[in-house]
Amino acid sequence: MRIHGRSFRTIWVRDDGWSIEVIEQTLLPHRFATVVLETPQDAARAIKTMQVRGAPLIGATAAYGLALAMRADPSDRNLVDTIALLASQRPTAVNLRWALEQMRGVLAALAPGARGQAAYAKAASICQDDVETCRMIGVHGAPVIETISKSKYGGVVNILTHCNAGWLACVDWGTATSPIYQAHDQGIKLHVWVDETRPRNQGAALTAYELGAHGVPHTIIVDNAGGHLMQHGKVDMCIVGTDRVTANGDVANKIGTYLKALAAKDNGVPFYVALPHSTIDWDMAEGAAIEIEERSGDEVLKMAGRLPDGSVATVDIAAPGSPAANPAFDVTPARLVTGLITERGICAASAEGLSRLYPGRSTSW
Amino acid sequence: MRIHGRSFRTIWVRDDGWSIEVIEQTLLPHRFATVVLETPQDAARAIKTMQVRGAPLIGATAAYGLALAMRADPSDRNLVDTIALLASQRPTAVNLRWALEQMRGVLAALAPGARGQAAYAKAASICQDDVETCRMIGVHGAPVIETISKSKYGGVVNILTHCNAGWLACVDWGTATSPIYQAHDQGIKLHVWVDETRPRNQGAALTAYELGAHGVPHTIIVDNAGGHLMQHGKVDMCIVGTDRVTANGDVANKIGTYLKALAAKDNGVPFYVALPHSTIDWDMAEGAAIEIEERSGDEVLKMAGRLPDGSVATVDIAAPGSPAANPAFDVTPARLVTGLITERGICAASAEGLSRLYPGRSTSW
Repeated sequence: MRIHGRSFRTIWVRDDGWSIEVIEQTLLPHRFATVVLETPQDAARAIKTMQVRGAPLIGATAAYGLALAMRADPSDRNLVDTIALLASQRPTAVNLRWALEQMRGVLAALAPGARGQAAYAKAASICQDDVETCRMIGVHGAPVIETISKSKYGGVVNILTHCNAGWLACVDWGTATSPIYQAHDQGIKLHVWVDETRPRNQGAALTAYELGAHGVPHTIIVDNAGGHLMQHGKVDMCIVGTDRVTANGDVANKIGTYLKALAAKDNGVPFYVALPHSTIDWDMAEGAAIEIEERSGDEVLKMAGRLPDGSVATVDIAAPGSPAANPAFDVTPARLVTGLITERGICAASAEGLSRLYPGRSTSW
Repeated sequence: MRIHGRSFRTIWVRDDGWSIEVIEQTLLPHRFATVVLETPQDAARAIKTMQVRGAPLIGATAAYGLALAMRADPSDRNLVDTIALLASQRPTAVNLRWALEQMRGVLAALAPGARGQAAYAKAASICQDDVETCRMIGVHGAPVIETISKSKYGGVVNILTHCNAGWLACVDWGTATSPIYQAHDQGIKLHVWVDETRPRNQGAALTAYELGAHGVPHTIIVDNAGGHLMQHGKVDMCIVGTDRVTANGDVANKIGTYLKALAAKDNGVPFYVALPHSTIDWDMAEGAAIEIEERSGDEVLKMAGRLPDGSVATVDIAAPGSPAANPAFDVTPARLVTGLITERGICAASAEGLSRLYPGRSTSW
């Protein structure tokens, strides 16, 4: 997608042919910068500190992190150790483990001498697959928006989203935003309610940033506001991304998603979840088993922003001395989900729905 | 209640016998300061800019604002004009109109020359009634906490609250916090989950501040987190305040309350609303008719906090150029409310429940 008129992906191989560059997302929306990753430790730190974030992009970064490791030391030992290092950086998103398993599947069978080049090729393939997967999520999801548009006689379709499941969370297109971008580009009138998504404000900082850059009409709201808007008929549908969908269709996503799904159910608003196949955790029966990452309370107690002189500062916003808890995700039960939008189409959030789209768990194209 | 070892109310008559002093709540928790009100315009501005906030305190401030007006010019014309001025500062809280009607009822019948002194006396009486009313809310509400404590064999009772319905929202004690303070003072082990309550952060700024000052164990969470905590059995009950309860028991309160009530219902967590009789709008049949205040989007896009040097700064937190919407309240349907805790006792959130406590709408003690 485009930033300041220039096309970007979120991650790419630099002109030197081996080092990796990513958009430094902790600085957005205040400053656009990139960061270079030269070691698997760099990649691990980028994942941990959320310089890169979003389930698909975490997977892509881990894949390139392993490629960096294989370039330096393609031994069996380093393969095993680096996978363990990278997998441990974030516990909730399944794409991280999925991408590393994809890499291991290719690399373990090769002689060490062949691993470096093969790792870069596989990581590139994971990224390219993600782009195509996200594009197809939009192909299947945009008609949902179009149908609502027609039911409103071409009136503006109001879509609520939470957190950032946009292209900044992926390699390109985004998951939840792909139907939005494609419907918008087709000329369907739409407007996006952007949950600010405390504590890290990925909505106000990233989703609003990328929607604005693409010219999509949108309005930032606090996370508290969505229920009220739904009660008053101001939301026609919700679309969110996800960090893990379990075999029964339960959805782990950014903390607060569950509250919006409850409000959608209470007000008859369709609630869709957009995801690539790599987000499905076939081995986990239901959402209650998902480990929910507990992050630092400082993310709640402090806030970064721009001072009047344009510099970026972090301020303490809460009562001094009060502690904070910071669970990063919650689980939305499948019963609250209208449908899962994947690169293969839309299905019910259920074991039956998922197995219809992925018979025998097959995800081959 | 106490701040830095000194007892405070939120509003009082100064030693000069006529000017009014209030705690400047927009500076909390970063700085403790007070502001002097010498004219009804001062009082109106304090209400509008939320130097004072919270339904009962808004009513008390309006009452003293009218007393300031009657001292300067006790004419019929000024009585009518000042009531209109003060009533127009915030649309949602019914206590504002209630307090002004109480004042009008006393003052309109008097000769202008008698109005000044009578206005101060009635405003003082409204404040004293609020203190006693809030105390009695605690008397009736603390046993609910005690019952849960016993069911947990004396284990910690986890209580979730939203916004600030503490003593800073009233004259003293608070509404939602009064049962909490009284149960805590009785030695019942409890812990409060404090919703930060975006966009103005009354939870993280005010509720955490006053709970901390009183020594009540508490933890700040983002507004997104409550549903997750309830899913995991970490919330035993919710108590919130309200800005208006309609005749059928619907509850207008700070934006986001509805989402927590939905989560409480979904997880079998009792959801209580604490209120003084002055918050009941007998003339409004149901919550859908309540005018919801739309405040400036800047409250969403900017955030005040302490810089490392201790000074207070306001930072821009969102993507530059993105607009924001800011509805300040939402309405929780009566069906989601376990009970209303008033100075008369606890009743169902229904016309029947309210009329049992207030037969013939009588609110006399």
